[in-house]
Order: sequence, then structure tokens, then C-alpha cells
Amino acid sequence: MVIKNISGGVCAPLGFKANGIHCGIRKNKSKRDFALIVSDVRASAAGVYTSNLVKGAPVIVTKNNLSDGYAQAIICNSGNANTCNSDGIEIAEKMCSLVSGCGDISAKDVIVASTGVIGQKLNIQPMVDGIGELWNGLGNHSEYAAQAIMTTDTVIKTVSIEFKLGGKVCRMGAIAKGVGMVCPNMATNLIFLTTDVNISPEMLQLALSNDVKSSFNMISVDGDQSTNDTCCILANGLAGNERITARSAHYNAFCKALNYCTVILSKKIAKDGEGATKLIECSVEGAKSLKIARTVAKTVIKSSLVKAAMFGADANWGRVLCAIGYSGVDVDILKVDVDFRSVKGVLPVCRGGYGVDFSEEKAKELLLEDEITILVNLNDGAYKATAWGCDLTYDYVKINGDYRT
Amino acid sequence: MVIKNISGGVCAPLGFKANGIHCGIRKNKSKRDFALIVSDVRASAAGVYTSNLVKGAPVIVTKNNLSDGYAQAIICNSGNANTCNSDGIEIAEKMCSLVSGCGDISAKDVIVASTGVIGQKLNIQPMVDGIGELWNGLGNHSEYAAQAIMTTDTVIKTVSIEFKLGGKVCRMGAIAKGVGMVCPNMATNLIFLTTDVNISPEMLQLALSNDVKSSFNMISVDGDQSTNDTCCILANGLAGNERITARSAHYNAFCKALNYCTVILSKKIAKDGEGATKLIECSVEGAKSLKIARTVAKTVIKSSLVKAAMFGADANWGRVLCAIGYSGVDVDILKVDVDFRSVKGVLPVCRGGYGVDFSEEKAKELLLEDEITILVNLNDGAYKATAWGCDLTYDYVKINGDYRT
Repeated sequence: MVIKNISGGVCAPLGFKANGIHCGIRKNKSKRDFALIVSDVRASAAGVYTSNLVKGAPVIVTKNNLSDGYAQAIICNSGNANTCNSDGIEIAEKMCSLVSGCGDISAKDVIVASTGVIGQKLNIQPMVDGIGELWNGLGNHSEYAAQAIMTTDTVIKTVSIEFKLGGKVCRMGAIAKGVGMVCPNMATNLIFLTTDVNISPEMLQLALSNDVKSSFNMISVDGDQSTNDTCCILANGLAGNERITARSAHYNAFCKALNYCTVILSKKIAKDGEGATKLIECSVEGAKSLKIARTVAKTVIKSSLVKAAMFGADANWGRVLCAIGYSGVDVDILKVDVDFRSVKGVLPVCRGGYGVDFSEEKAKELLLEDEITILVNLNDGAYKATAWGCDLTYDYVKINGDYRT
Repeated sequence: MVIKNISGGVCAPLGFKANGIHCGIRKNKSKRDFALIVSDVRASAAGVYTSNLVKGAPVIVTKNNLSDGYAQAIICNSGNANTCNSDGIEIAEKMCSLVSGCGDISAKDVIVASTGVIGQKLNIQPMVDGIGELWNGLGNHSEYAAQAIMTTDTVIKTVSIEFKLGGKVCRMGAIAKGVGMVCPNMATNLIFLTTDVNISPEMLQLALSNDVKSSFNMISVDGDQSTNDTCCILANGLAGNERITARSAHYNAFCKALNYCTVILSKKIAKDGEGATKLIECSVEGAKSLKIARTVAKTVIKSSLVKAAMFGADANWGRVLCAIGYSGVDVDILKVDVDFRSVKGVLPVCRGGYGVDFSEEKAKELLLEDEITILVNLNDGAYKATAWGCDLTYDYVKINGDYRT
């Protein structure tokens, strides 16, 4: 299957427009804080959400709005998560009504999301005042929308691709925000995907629910799980392919395209983790089960000690083994091999649970790169999994020590 | 029950001597790295150990040596954990033999422990050369032993007390090291307790196994769980109380004395967490079960975002609620109350899952103190639990970014 990177973000698929403006939720006037994505036609829609018991009000409203499998727009603000507020649901529903007030879209067909500080009331007024400008400016502005959903993100996270289904050219695009409070137990933070593929809501939901298990659920920045995690996809069918309504070759091809996008976004989210200086990938193979492979990969990625060692470019492989040991799954430590890999090469550091001699100089050179892979072979089966994270740095502490002020 | 703080550490109970020297495992000659604690007579002994699948060789040897319920000495080095080494067991057994070579003690009656870097071979020679000096210097030197087991600890952790059982004066003392790789899933790192109470090995093990659930298992510094965690107690019976051989009033009193010591050590370990500037206590009440109370307390203490907020003296209570929400236990978020407390007073910040108005100025003043309690009331039952941790600081990252070099 041929997948081609193209430009356009969420506006790359046919029939999608986007915009992002500063409406005043944030004090900094140069920071966009209000985003909108609209499809020309009603679209199949699917979502996956945080499993935190504390759910942002927008999550509850979105779940409810998507219960019929269709939606047409996505509205989102940054600067305030609208979570733990007694009027949260009311405010989130008002945000949906703002969209329906502008065009021929039902408030029930709006996906709503908010990101930012928890427990402070979200004032609807800046959005009431700004919705006209936001709507009227809709166009090929995926980048503005991507900017408007950023919090402590330092770079825009976006991807867009082209692929074929049964001879028809199809497109998929996405924007995401990640950064902190990123934990591998649900599609992480905010991810909005658009596609012009024609697919039923049921198959779209199945594809998305399966996909996050190997993409957004395999990222960790700090092990904290957000209250507002939302990953939604709109599929408006304008590519004109034969509608996908069951498992088929076309469904499988769609899943591959989706995973191509979500893995790229997962790496971008991990690499831009709060304060991060590098992307850490843990690739586990030789596991007895998929669950073991995933658990081991995620545990290594989450270890504060592994993360701090990577920041220091220190080949402290004992911490990798230690994390495997407390991951809670059945592993024979005396079979475990560990290598470190970067563009500088591969360095074996552990064989059969014991250390092997290696050049500290070579290790340092390898680990100073900004993308490091920790290769773990459990030598115990055929399953594999990959997880993504980042190093733990002074700046993570700085960013999170005074986030609200 | 009256408990009196006394001096003496592990040498406070009758019949215990200790020492600690620099033998050369560490390069820094001013740092003691080799510790010994000896009882005049064979003692009842009990231990709890790491549940990490990767176990330091000393843990395996100690478990084996304590299988008959008795021991007479504790030998420990710092600077090298003797873990993930192919000759680890052999070296740990040699350490036991060094003790038996000096006096009338069986190698099988020696508790052995090592702490430091993982995966580098431990050279026995400095200990062979140093055992004479270590043994000959045995005396009232609990402090030397406490210094010798320290790694990145910045302060000595010790406690000693006096109490009565059936009219007989009894004593208990302890030394501990903690600091990094401290996770609430087992008695944490190295804790050596001594007492002159007369108690059977079975009751001693029962008391210790129960105790750690509310003490050392409730600490978290970084969520990483060490491969070498060991908590051992020697009870030599020299106080002359009637031997405790079953659950009884005396057994309960002994458990209270033990818990007094272990909670003090738990707080000291948490407060001296790597890079920490303050002790964070999370006190949960109103839980439906003890498991829920403990899980919630530990999850809050472990949250990187809560820890970073405490470092910044930022009353970001939303992160506390968020951590409760992902703790994985059944909690009704709309019943949850949260207060912050320090010597400056108590500040309610959340009632019934929603924020309440509070003075940011007062919050800042309160949170700038170096001991903070996060009070959580689940308003859902009668169970309570307390966990201890520390803030996440720049220095945690610095210490762990280049630990080996």
C-alpha cells in the first residue's frame, strides 16, 4: 500500500475547513486559544476518551453527541480544561450551540474539547464574542487550529497523507496536542483526525478503538493521565470510495493509513513532552504475549530513572532491567537482552540478564543523539510492541512547578 | 502505651554493636562504604524484600539465610548493588563468610545487603582487606553504620526508642537508607532494625510483614522499585520479657513500638527523596475499604504533576483530583473533598469534586513550608490511610542524569 505525505493537515481531505483565533481565554494576545474544524457534510464520527474517573465536561458532552455515530464540526479552546466546575456541562453545551448558531449544523453534531488548567470556571463570553470571527475565517487554516489547541507544546503536531482505496484517491489529516499529563492508558490528550473516506460509523469506531492500543496508548510523558483526553475522527465520505461497512481489504488498508498517521503523531507528542530533549522509543520483542510486550515497553518508558539517565546520556541499562522486573508481568530475567540504538549505531549492553562489556565512550556518543531506541528482547516468544516517551529534564520540573501562574 | 525517644540507633537495644568504615568500594575516601551490625547472641530474625523480579544477589542469599528464623549479624556495602552480575551469589556468600571468619557466628546467620549501581561486578577484595578493621572497631557506632549504607542520602536516617512490655524495659533501634528508586510496593530500600525484645521468629515475621503495609509500602519518591529493597529486624531477647509467641496484648504493644519507628523512618526517607525540598503527606479518609484508601493516597503521592506543583508551592488541586481519578479504584468523585495543610494552617480547596474559592496568597504561604499534608476525604466510608512522598525538583533530574559518572 502506497502512502504519500501531503500538506494541508486537517484540511487535506476534501470538504474540510479549519480556523484558529485568539478570543481572550488566554491573557497572551499572540496565542490563539479557540479552534474550529468543519466538514461540508455530516460525517461518520468516532471517538476514544480518557478513562480517568474525573472527566472534563467536554468529554461527557462529546460522548453524548457522538452516540448516534455522526458529527460535522469540532470546537476546542485552550487555556482552561472546563473540568471540576459545577457549570461545566452547561458551558460545553453552549460551545456546541455557538457552532450551530453560525451555520446549518445541529449542536448535537458538534465535538467539543477544552484543554488547560483544571478547576477554574471557563468563561463563555470570549467565545461568544469570538465565534463570528472564528466561523467567518474558516478556510485552509489547519495550522491556525493546531496552534489554538496547544498548551505547553513547543511545536505544532500535524500530519496529512494520501492513499488509494479501490482506485479512489483518499486523504487523511490530523492535528494534535500533547506534552504533559500524558500517560499510556488512553488515546492521549487532544487528537482530531479528518478523512474523506466513506466508512460506516461502526467500522470507523472499530478502527479507531483498535488503533489507539498500538499508538496513543503506548506514549508516556509523565505517567499522569489527563481528565480531558479525546481522540476523534470525522470521515465525510467525499472521496467517493465504496462505503466500508465490514472487515475487508479496504478496511484493512484504511486501518494501515490510520496507524501511519497515529504513530507519527505519537512520536511527535512523545518527543515534545514537557521539557524533553529527546525521543525515547522502547521496542520489545520475543514476548510470550502481546500484553507482556506492551506492558514491558510502557514500564521502561515510564521509569523516571531510565528517563533521567537518557537525559544524562548515561548507559545505565541496569535501570532498564530493573523496570522490566517491576512491570508486573511474567518475564524470565535471565533470558533478557538489551541494546541501545541511535543513528550512531547499536550497542549491546546486557545479555541473558547480565551486563556485557561495552565502551562507555561509544555509549555516550550514541546516547547524545536526540532519538534513542531501547531494544529489549525477552527471547521468550513471538510478540512485539513499541512504546514512546521522552527524557526527564530540569525543564519538566520548571514547567510544572508553576503551571498556573 | 508510653514510647520514649532515646539515643543509640541500632546499638540502643541491649547486646548490639555496630561499625562502619571506608574499605575502598567507593573512590571517595571520606565516604564510609562498609557496615556491620552484630548481636551478642543469636536472635530471632525476620525480613521483607523487593518484589521486583530482578533481585539483587544479596536479597537471595539473605532470604535463604533467614529461612530458619534466626540470625546474628548484618553486613552491608554501599557503592555497588551486586545485582545483575553472573558471580553475584558467590560474592554475597563470601561477604557472609567474612563475618563468620571473625567470630563465633555461622555464615548462615548473616544478613547481607548491597546498595549502589546495578550491573557492575562487585570486587570482594576491599571487603576482605577491610573486615578486620570493621570487626575490631565494633562498638556503640550506629552512626558509622548509618553513614556507610548511604548512597545519595543527604542525612542519616535513624531512630531509637524505649518502651515497656510487662514491666520490662525494652528498646528498639534502626538505621535506614532511601532516597531514589523508592516505590510503594515493598519495604523500601535498606532498613535494619534491632530490638532486645524476646519474641519468636514467627511472630516477629508477622509483625514486620503487617507493619510495612502501612509504613515502608506507603512511601514513593520516584515510582521506581529497587532490586535490592530489604527490611530486616533482629530481636535478641536480652530485655528479658516473657517471650511473645502468639497474638496477645504484648504482641500488640510490640507492633505499636515497631510502627512508631517505621513511620518515623518512612517520613525521613520520603523527605530526603532525591532532590526533594519538602515532605508531602497524603492522608486519605472516608474510604469504602482499606485498599481504596491506600491506593488513593499512594497515587496522589506518586503523581509527577502533583509533586512538581508542590515544588512550585502551587495550589493546583485539580492535579490531586485528577490523580484520584486515574488511581483505578472505585471512587465517587462528586463526594471528594480536598484540603492543603501545613504548620501555617488548613486550606479547603475542593468540596464535592468542585473547586471552592480560596486566597492564592494564603495558599502560597501555606505551601512554602517544608512539610505539606494533602487531606483527601472520600466521604464514602470509614477507612483511612496515609502515604509519604516528596516534591519533584531540578535536583532529582540532576542526581539521576549522571548517577554512574
